[in-house]
Amino acid sequence: MTAPSEAALKAAAHVDEARLWARHMEMAKLGARADGGVNRQTLSETDRAARELISSWARERGYTLFIDDMANQFIRREGTGDGPAVLAGSHMDSQPAGGRFDGIYGVLAAFEALDALDAAGLKTGRAIECVNWTNEEGSRYLPGAMGSMVWSGKGQPQDFFGLTDKAGARFEDELAATITAATDAEKRPLGFNPHAYLEAHIEQGPVLEERGLDVAAVSGIQGWRWLKAEVTGVSGHAGTVPMAQRIDALQAATRAIAALGELMQDRDDVVRFTVGHMEVEPNSPNTIPSTVRFTIDFRHPDQKVLAERGGRIEQVVRAAVSPCEVTLTETTRSEPNDFPADMVARIEGAAEALGVSHTRLASGAYHDAHFVARVCPTAMIFVPCRGGISHHPDEYAEAHHLAAGARVLTAALADLAGVS
Amino acid sequence: MTAPSEAALKAAAHVDEARLWARHMEMAKLGARADGGVNRQTLSETDRAARELISSWARERGYTLFIDDMANQFIRREGTGDGPAVLAGSHMDSQPAGGRFDGIYGVLAAFEALDALDAAGLKTGRAIECVNWTNEEGSRYLPGAMGSMVWSGKGQPQDFFGLTDKAGARFEDELAATITAATDAEKRPLGFNPHAYLEAHIEQGPVLEERGLDVAAVSGIQGWRWLKAEVTGVSGHAGTVPMAQRIDALQAATRAIAALGELMQDRDDVVRFTVGHMEVEPNSPNTIPSTVRFTIDFRHPDQKVLAERGGRIEQVVRAAVSPCEVTLTETTRSEPNDFPADMVARIEGAAEALGVSHTRLASGAYHDAHFVARVCPTAMIFVPCRGGISHHPDEYAEAHHLAAGARVLTAALADLAGVS
Repeated sequence: MTAPSEAALKAAAHVDEARLWARHMEMAKLGARADGGVNRQTLSETDRAARELISSWARERGYTLFIDDMANQFIRREGTGDGPAVLAGSHMDSQPAGGRFDGIYGVLAAFEALDALDAAGLKTGRAIECVNWTNEEGSRYLPGAMGSMVWSGKGQPQDFFGLTDKAGARFEDELAATITAATDAEKRPLGFNPHAYLEAHIEQGPVLEERGLDVAAVSGIQGWRWLKAEVTGVSGHAGTVPMAQRIDALQAATRAIAALGELMQDRDDVVRFTVGHMEVEPNSPNTIPSTVRFTIDFRHPDQKVLAERGGRIEQVVRAAVSPCEVTLTETTRSEPNDFPADMVARIEGAAEALGVSHTRLASGAYHDAHFVARVCPTAMIFVPCRGGISHHPDEYAEAHHLAAGARVLTAALADLAGVS
Repeated sequence: MTAPSEAALKAAAHVDEARLWARHMEMAKLGARADGGVNRQTLSETDRAARELISSWARERGYTLFIDDMANQFIRREGTGDGPAVLAGSHMDSQPAGGRFDGIYGVLAAFEALDALDAAGLKTGRAIECVNWTNEEGSRYLPGAMGSMVWSGKGQPQDFFGLTDKAGARFEDELAATITAATDAEKRPLGFNPHAYLEAHIEQGPVLEERGLDVAAVSGIQGWRWLKAEVTGVSGHAGTVPMAQRIDALQAATRAIAALGELMQDRDDVVRFTVGHMEVEPNSPNTIPSTVRFTIDFRHPDQKVLAERGGRIEQVVRAAVSPCEVTLTETTRSEPNDFPADMVARIEGAAEALGVSHTRLASGAYHDAHFVARVCPTAMIFVPCRGGISHHPDEYAEAHHLAAGARVLTAALADLAGVS
């Protein structure tokens, strides 16, 4: 553990729980759903309204606004020196039936850190920038974490030109509209080398709540392999085709999912295996299904396990669906991240010094930090969310947990930026 | 087997294979799909065009047109006496991605029988009516077989008022438009007592094709129980929630379907068990499903088996989905039909005398005959369809099979109507 400086603790003491909560509630009005959730999809009018709201707060405080060609938004509090800035943030877009905390918390906590430094009357040698990465969710345009991915040097904006959302809106048009709407933001090239990056986020899992802890210092992000399976059988009338003659794509998919469940057995309960999406054709109650498509989401923090079990998925599925045919496509894979030990130690040290109860967790979800970690030393801070629920209108985090995470973030950021 | 009369055989000899095929192809233009299939949904403009086309043929031949309050359409060739008419037909509506033979064949074969009697210069004591039952498919407005059901005394048209299709078109408006469009059809009350009813249909199964046979005399229609299951779990993030803590609705549904497969095991391969429809919520690749809805279609010709195994479905599903919750709803059930032995014997006798190879089959699908059989002696004739495929653009029947079925139908009808 790396203990924070006195000045860093002073900055953290100026984190204002009520202000941070009020900002969450104000942001939640943008894209508010009748069920209490939020629908603020990337690059939409609602997203632009949220960007303008945080920009208006930034103007009040005299911070400088930047935007790059992926519409990643940066709010800069200047430092007294000229070394690379320290970066902190997350994303402001949500799932269509999302909640009030996923993503937006990391941005508002970083903004709170800037405010707290001001309130404490502290200067930093390095500038600190609060960042809002474009399209982390991937619910409107795939893939997710597009903004941080391109920023970190993987691909370019043009790679996604031609994508349309369900209503037919083109990615490039919505991207351009979002950049154009940021009238007082200075254009900046994609990518730079920050001194470090910190991201606060709700855990999106049940562990902190169950253990009664305030924050987690995140040790890394587990790797994943995502696949699409398309099982093909032969359609037929549900009343007439004898069972022995059927080539039923849904029965085959059911066998495949059961067989994958066997493959993914793990007595340590570290493997994550999910079939979240399934489509049936023709999807008529009295017709034998001819095609079933389903997704496989397999995650693990150990690259060896990902490679070994992931490598057996195709064989297991193919055997299970017989006599149906199956096409398996790996849509994305990612090796696990290990955040640098000194970065994790800084989070733990800040929590310890601030009297914030903490543990160490690997992130089950991916985050923008996954890509930023390729560019600079990175760490994350998790706060509990009720029932582990996220990507759902019921998503909820306690104001005192949000504030505890923001205090830890502020202390760590302040020291990384050379507070005095 | 009941042998047909000489006059009946003479009528059958006037069935014209080329004319019957040409009429199928002309009908298939109404609602033709680019993939070769037909989309002619009940009470649509396309359905009205098909009704008008067969009406124009009827006018040419001097037959009388009738329509009732369910828009069931009757084409009457008068008899010399005044006993109850003999009825034959089926339906002219199709599935949205349907084929060129399902339903329409039974109507055109019955019309061909009238034409053949004319061509042979034969009279019948009883009138013969060719019937087109409204909405057998149920793909636009549920339930299917609505026209024959109400005609047979179960329910009334008003029961379906208020139903809308996917585009918002109301059933009662489309029904009224269809009745109004039949300008030269005489209105007739719902229901009467025909002397007998015959329905020709493609098999919608693979048996006749596999055995190389021309027709089947249908012994009855198997009974069914249809259920909807809604499995409820708890949503969560695919990367974070430990497997041991998940209440995953899709994994639960998968276990339920496997358990039902066990329950429905049948070494005689008479049971039919199908899960044709499944919906997943939120259906996102990286979210643990919170809700899965699926249908259960269970059929058997023996009422005891339907009652016994059907009665165990709920218990089997409930045990399998634990710790998820499940709601099971029986959407419809029907007891098996046994067609009268003398009616089946008449079909077999006609086939035998005409040199048409035949067997006896139970119908796996339901048909309008299911309801008409409550009112009068009923039987059905099946002809082969390629690969057993129906409800699909690839649905296909050979012209010579269609003609063979029409000859058997004509001979049986002629004798039932007292040909001379």
